[in-house]
Amino acid sequence: MHPFDQAIALQAGADDSFTGHTSEAYRNMIGPFGGITAAVLLNAALQHPKCLGEPTAMTINFAGPVPDGPFRIQARPVRTNRSTQHWQIEQWVDDPESGQPIIATTASLVTAVRRPTWSATDVPAPVQGGPDPAQEPIVVTSFTPWLSQYALVPLQGPLPTEWDGSENSDSLTSFWVRKSTPRALDFCALVAVCDVFYPRIWRRRARQVPAGTVSMTVYFHADAQTLAHSGEGYVLAQATGQEFRNNFADQSGHIWNSAGQLLASTHQIAYYKE
Amino acid sequence: MHPFDQAIALQAGADDSFTGHTSEAYRNMIGPFGGITAAVLLNAALQHPKCLGEPTAMTINFAGPVPDGPFRIQARPVRTNRSTQHWQIEQWVDDPESGQPIIATTASLVTAVRRPTWSATDVPAPVQGGPDPAQEPIVVTSFTPWLSQYALVPLQGPLPTEWDGSENSDSLTSFWVRKSTPRALDFCALVAVCDVFYPRIWRRRARQVPAGTVSMTVYFHADAQTLAHSGEGYVLAQATGQEFRNNFADQSGHIWNSAGQLLASTHQIAYYKE
Repeated sequence: MHPFDQAIALQAGADDSFTGHTSEAYRNMIGPFGGITAAVLLNAALQHPKCLGEPTAMTINFAGPVPDGPFRIQARPVRTNRSTQHWQIEQWVDDPESGQPIIATTASLVTAVRRPTWSATDVPAPVQGGPDPAQEPIVVTSFTPWLSQYALVPLQGPLPTEWDGSENSDSLTSFWVRKSTPRALDFCALVAVCDVFYPRIWRRRARQVPAGTVSMTVYFHADAQTLAHSGEGYVLAQATGQEFRNNFADQSGHIWNSAGQLLASTHQIAYYKE
Repeated sequence: MHPFDQAIALQAGADDSFTGHTSEAYRNMIGPFGGITAAVLLNAALQHPKCLGEPTAMTINFAGPVPDGPFRIQARPVRTNRSTQHWQIEQWVDDPESGQPIIATTASLVTAVRRPTWSATDVPAPVQGGPDPAQEPIVVTSFTPWLSQYALVPLQGPLPTEWDGSENSDSLTSFWVRKSTPRALDFCALVAVCDVFYPRIWRRRARQVPAGTVSMTVYFHADAQTLAHSGEGYVLAQATGQEFRNNFADQSGHIWNSAGQLLASTHQIAYYKE
């Protein structure tokens, strides 16, 4: 089993509940990589027998740490319309201090049955005719454990190599990325890769201040078939910081496939110290 | 009482619940203006005796229509940390068909106690030294009822005057905006103004297809004091569409005060037909 599928595996229980287990492969500095948590919460809704349509919008709130071990997810469809459905999803863990169940993560999800309409993009892929990532050397880093699950071909705004506090004039990062062990793209993999960017404050300041995502939103622009066509190949990921202000900074990002189609827009706000 | 304060007024009940009533002044074509719904849900959390800190991130999901009349809001702090707090908020209405209570709107909110840190912006206000909006003629339109609650000074990308299907090459709109009856800016007013943009698909296509916001996210970059300094004056609002694809289109926007400080980043995804 692919490490990603292992990490998002769930056992269905009663009352809209699912149980899962944190994955060593997707460990971050504290708790799991946020992207894998988003993926497993999405997976719960997608596995739910009442699920209508495909993911269209998801917001995930990282409310507290997810300790190593088992967790429980509750995924409830709170409103079902003709072609759209609204979900509330919660991840419950045992609080290491009290031993009592506590909410670690919440999410809202909109799924929808979508039909072909007039379509267009106002955010074309920024790289056209650039280097073919498949011909470039794969860069797998072990800066934090989960990162070795991804192969990156850097384009712009790499992780600073010197943490010397020399401020950059921008906070833009772009790279080609795929799983280091190939696996086809699907909705869960797409939502995970939306959190693959290192903290924008690190780029902007060249200072490795404590930072962590608090809330992430993903808008899905591709259907299952388009994702399947993207196969195991690279996607182009780009993000830029927006406002860095009093402990919180937000970023906006985009994920395109190699054919230049926008698969997802993604926004997040992260806590930072100092 | 200002129409805005009337529209967001709530009566506190037991069990984290509040009751309110839709406002004629903020009526949209179907149900209330989304921004006023966001404001009243935020107001519930801010009035809650357990509220910690100030709004930092909010996502609101418009799950179904809000009928004219009373509604109930449940605002629960689901996780409280040292300096951050996570909220789940639901708006319940009586289903006109069944007469049973049904969820019309859900929201998640992160509040936080924020401290002064290193701060910077990567999205400076696009207008510097432009016309002083206070000297410009006020444009109040009654295209849809709630819109007459706002005074706009258009800058770019106005509502098409001819719905002739002549596609625009972009979907950017910017304007100065304040309440038509002056009222000081606060968090509720800020979240409402984040939904003030007309549907991007109308701009892009010059076709008035059915469209409505499904999910909106707001990241707050200003504290109460900064908002108070903005007073009753104009804020600069700018938004652009991103991907228009198979019934759904997303947009990204920003709200700056007249001093050029970014008050909020806002993103949303809207349904559209055809």
